[in-house]
Amino acid sequence: MAEEKTSQYHSHPVRVYYEDTDAAGIVYYANYLKYAERARTELLRTLGLENASLMENSGLAFAVRHCSIDYIKAARLDDALFVATFVIDLAGASLTMQQDVYRAGDVLVSLEVRLACIDVASGRAKRLPAPVRDAFAGYLSTS
Amino acid sequence: MAEEKTSQYHSHPVRVYYEDTDAAGIVYYANYLKYAERARTELLRTLGLENASLMENSGLAFAVRHCSIDYIKAARLDDALFVATFVIDLAGASLTMQQDVYRAGDVLVSLEVRLACIDVASGRAKRLPAPVRDAFAGYLSTS
Amino acid sequence: MAEEKTSQYHSHPVRVYYEDTDAAGIVYYANYLKYAERARTELLRTLGLENASLMENSGLAFAVRHCSIDYIKAARLDDALFVATFVIDLAGASLTMQQDVYRAGDVLVSLEVRLACIDVASGRAKRLPAPVRDAFAGYLSTS
Amino acid sequence: MAEEKTSQYHSHPVRVYYEDTDAAGIVYYANYLKYAERARTELLRTLGLENASLMENSGLAFAVRHCSIDYIKAARLDDALFVATFVIDLAGASLTMQQDVYRAGDVLVSLEVRLACIDVASGRAKRLPAPVRDAFAGYLSTS
Repeated sequence: MAEEKTSQYHSHPVRVYYEDTDAAGIVYYANYLKYAERARTELLRTLGLENASLMENSGLAFAVRHCSIDYIKAARLDDALFVATFVIDLAGASLTMQQDVYRAGDVLVSLEVRLACIDVASGRAKRLPAPVRDAFAGYLSTS
Repeated sequence: MAEEKTSQYHSHPVRVYYEDTDAAGIVYYANYLKYAERARTELLRTLGLENASLMENSGLAFAVRHCSIDYIKAARLDDALFVATFVIDLAGASLTMQQDVYRAGDVLVSLEVRLACIDVASGRAKRLPAPVRDAFAGYLSTS
Repeated sequence: MAEEKTSQYHSHPVRVYYEDTDAAGIVYYANYLKYAERARTELLRTLGLENASLMENSGLAFAVRHCSIDYIKAARLDDALFVATFVIDLAGASLTMQQDVYRAGDVLVSLEVRLACIDVASGRAKRLPAPVRDAFAGYLSTS
Repeated sequence: MAEEKTSQYHSHPVRVYYEDTDAAGIVYYANYLKYAERARTELLRTLGLENASLMENSGLAFAVRHCSIDYIKAARLDDALFVATFVIDLAGASLTMQQDVYRAGDVLVSLEVRLACIDVASGRAKRLPAPVRDAFAGYLSTS
């Protein structure tokens, strides 16, 4: 998160509750994908879009096609985290985001997520509507 | 589970994995409701019914209206549990089950769950179809 | 939530994400217990207490002993909810809370939760420390 | 899963319940990581090892360091799945597994998971004990 990127990422706060932890005393590894999905949903909402209305009005949804996750440090009960989300690639019918889960200045977990825009009825890939694509472009990382 | 009830309850095995536990080292309290729902689903399957086909073919689903849970002892990682399910009341459009989560001979958690049969499209209560009602009657506790 | 109670309940906002919903299109019934636990944790934090430090410093934790849940209406994807928490009984080593999950003015789900204060090492009931008891007393419902 | 590999993979059955699905009608993307972890735990059990006793007796645990997931097709409510697990790399203090989630002959989701053996007290990497290493070697893919 070099200074020149400040305007390009979306930040979403996450608090760690008992539900998120496991018997090893740390956040269960699958739960970072929940945090990442919450952050993507809030990024969409910032852009004026909601998953439910996108599905009802346009018949569109974002489906995760690939996800790559580095687990660097563990988060623990009561930790205050945040998810920093960047768009790192924006193609016709898909986009790739980098999502870093931070505790203060430390990256704990880093995800790269490729999403496809799909037509819910047919399950087929669909081009991102221009306003959606333009909205995401504001979060496109230049690095 | 007195001997004369042996034919009346349904037993479903559950293994405790990391995903089920929390930082206190025990199964997170909400997760017993997952175990209970798995057991009800398998009881349905034993009766020749599946949630997905019930919804598609008859437009029916079972909605939980009330749930009362006693937490007696805690389950832990790697525990081998089973859920014993009895039908304790069978009415026109609803039924009540008792579901006890056991580790060997110990009841750890005891749930009482009232389910309504609903028409998914309207959300309204619907009478239990006679074959479904008859199927459940075999698990009706006489005590 | 009659007017005279306004000062006595704690309110915690909850947003419904995909992780919370199920194939019936509604919030999965076990997940309201997660919302309730988040709200109790935030109420503790408001009182200057944290689960993790309570465990480390005093060896104490709150264990749910009983939970009774009425499911009245279903929450759905993208809903903005809040959990209103009242203390309805405060005894020597336990307390009972009422927790209502609201969407705007509608109660969707109502929980009554009895918690015991326990010594983590021995698992035995322990009297609530006076400052903790006094802190909770401010949320005691008078109705 | 070419025929000559038959002896080298571990198979773990998974049934899809309501808890696993989301409002899009499919298994929520984070939940495949739960299925994979269950399968790894059962593979350990097959080798005579349990997570809880490994932690208590040897102070060791397996921590996920990296996870790469391809989402190919979606699983749905009531699906009967199985997870095929191969060891694809076995190093001094870490191992890499490929885990494919199947519905009948179709791979729905494919995971590659790198695990480090760690000393729980210090959090540091620890060499795999020889018997554990030998046990995993039986599942090492030759392809």
